[in-house]
Amino acid sequence: MFPDFDYAARLDRARMLMTERGIDVLMLSVGADLPYFSGYEAMPLERLTMLVVPRDGSATMVVPRLEAPRVQLRGDAFVVRAWDETEDPIEIAANLVGTRSTAALGDPTWSVFLLGLQQRLAHTSFVSATGLTRELRMRKEPEEVRWLRAAAEATDRVVARLDGQRFSGRTERELSRLVADMTLEEGHDLASFGIVASGPNAASPHHEAGDRVIGVGETIVVDFGGRLRGYCSDTTRTFHTGTPSGPVADAFSVLEAAQAAARAAVAPGVSAEAVDRAARRMITDAGYGDRFIHRTGHGIGLEVHEHPYVVEGNRLPLEPGMAFSIEPGIYEPGSFGMRIEDIVVCGDAGVDELNRSPRRLHLVD
Amino acid sequence: MFPDFDYAARLDRARMLMTERGIDVLMLSVGADLPYFSGYEAMPLERLTMLVVPRDGSATMVVPRLEAPRVQLRGDAFVVRAWDETEDPIEIAANLVGTRSTAALGDPTWSVFLLGLQQRLAHTSFVSATGLTRELRMRKEPEEVRWLRAAAEATDRVVARLDGQRFSGRTERELSRLVADMTLEEGHDLASFGIVASGPNAASPHHEAGDRVIGVGETIVVDFGGRLRGYCSDTTRTFHTGTPSGPVADAFSVLEAAQAAARAAVAPGVSAEAVDRAARRMITDAGYGDRFIHRTGHGIGLEVHEHPYVVEGNRLPLEPGMAFSIEPGIYEPGSFGMRIEDIVVCGDAGVDELNRSPRRLHLVD
Repeated sequence: MFPDFDYAARLDRARMLMTERGIDVLMLSVGADLPYFSGYEAMPLERLTMLVVPRDGSATMVVPRLEAPRVQLRGDAFVVRAWDETEDPIEIAANLVGTRSTAALGDPTWSVFLLGLQQRLAHTSFVSATGLTRELRMRKEPEEVRWLRAAAEATDRVVARLDGQRFSGRTERELSRLVADMTLEEGHDLASFGIVASGPNAASPHHEAGDRVIGVGETIVVDFGGRLRGYCSDTTRTFHTGTPSGPVADAFSVLEAAQAAARAAVAPGVSAEAVDRAARRMITDAGYGDRFIHRTGHGIGLEVHEHPYVVEGNRLPLEPGMAFSIEPGIYEPGSFGMRIEDIVVCGDAGVDELNRSPRRLHLVD
Repeated sequence: MFPDFDYAARLDRARMLMTERGIDVLMLSVGADLPYFSGYEAMPLERLTMLVVPRDGSATMVVPRLEAPRVQLRGDAFVVRAWDETEDPIEIAANLVGTRSTAALGDPTWSVFLLGLQQRLAHTSFVSATGLTRELRMRKEPEEVRWLRAAAEATDRVVARLDGQRFSGRTERELSRLVADMTLEEGHDLASFGIVASGPNAASPHHEAGDRVIGVGETIVVDFGGRLRGYCSDTTRTFHTGTPSGPVADAFSVLEAAQAAARAAVAPGVSAEAVDRAARRMITDAGYGDRFIHRTGHGIGLEVHEHPYVVEGNRLPLEPGMAFSIEPGIYEPGSFGMRIEDIVVCGDAGVDELNRSPRRLHLVD
């Protein structure tokens, strides 16, 4: 699934950062750090998969025997140590750490494995690996941007096809299925999520599509995405059946302007929080401040949410190659909700917009 | 999604076990422990969701503000503490622990959260929660068995429909999509996985369906499942295009007998490893011992893999209500693979077979 990047070179860059930061060994399991450095993604199950990367030695992929055939060797980036059902994989990983004193562990690694490692390695201290891995992962290589763009363009085509669909009279779940099917038809390998939140449900930003039948005169938030060669898409458009009421139309025009302002704020050297503020200020000034209950965006790449986070308090200066969502929303509990979400990349001079489907309120039957 | 169980009663049973085992607080995040005790499933993302259950107090669900509307209150089982984007959820969870000295943490909880809790709670020791939660979760209540049965019956209907399909000339991916569609059509809420492994790929037990076009004279392992009201299905049948060769037919008859022997071994008081041995002995005696490279099965319920594991070394005596897979396989690297997988429940007198579709080698075009 993952493109043929130079994984050995990425591991060497990680080793340089490990030296700078006094980290002796990097340990990556489930989540996106592992495929970033190895082209292999662990199954999120109870059998341990872990890439152990000593600063001073070669990397070893500890993997369940029955999953070893899935692992594609990537040059000499790592060797494989398959473990049998009656072996203890924690013991194997601990032996690879040996007497090293500082280990950086991938964030989503299951706690039960950390507890097991801590028990066996009393003299090793464990820290989060993300401080290190994000330094590499959040600055996308040009080929990574190409895959993100391909994924975004595919979702734009889905939005165009949704414009021709009837929404009213169908259930959220039915439309969510349709969105997933279209996402696959447009070239994704996986359709990961498809929020379809109608009427009052649209006020719940992470609503799960359910059996509610969409009526006339409602906003419908459609927030969907998937993966294409490992790279994630994530876009949101707001649809409306029938004629928008005054309050809906007013709120939407504020939202549209706020989302455009945040996109326009993107440039090298601008802080992530400044992008959040660009959207939030306009929404707050228009009186909807307490109706925008989440951050403006999140980084995206091999993971749908990753660094950098576009949130108050994140002073990280944007750099070329950083990819993230811009997705302000306005939520009126019990009544309606709306969100506009694009994936953008910080370019050398300003914003590079990967999603380009119309951001207007999409009127449908 | 999750049925309306008596969650408060389950939490009270957990508190009794906590008292017995000297655990002061239970902390559950992503994974199936959380819905088992609360009817709510955390999104597997970077924002912390955590149910904090003190032995001596009421439970609190710490949840991101934007996901709070998803949480359905279940009587007075717990209260909700929604956190805002600029708050630190680890701090909130740590304050709920306070000065308690032993905390049991759900296994799949992200390590980064455990590291954060350890930093703030220097006097609290952390242990895996599974030793406690599995005592409740692995003995299914009758209503849980009803949902598992409904899910298994739905997958049996998918198998019946696959018998009428042409396999040769289609890609693994195409068939995997078809299986997922059928799984949803037959009543599942989610189609979680669909392994379609053909020809030499069938020798990789966890193969990911790819672009390989299925030929004539091949075994195809179809291992699929999903969720129905939160409860998992997981079944495998082996298909064959054209006439099976002598070696394939011979191996399959051994496999069929071994799988039947393992099913027949299930009864209260029999150890989990004895069920594994029942299948393994027959496969080994027939000379395929080194071609059966995984355990015989895994428990199933809200998680597709959970306790009890049917593996050498697990001396746990089976009890009525325990639900698990029986899925021996024979894998000839570079050549073919085969597996038969059923979900069964240990009944009062013997095995209760939830999957009943024919276990034979399914001949298809």
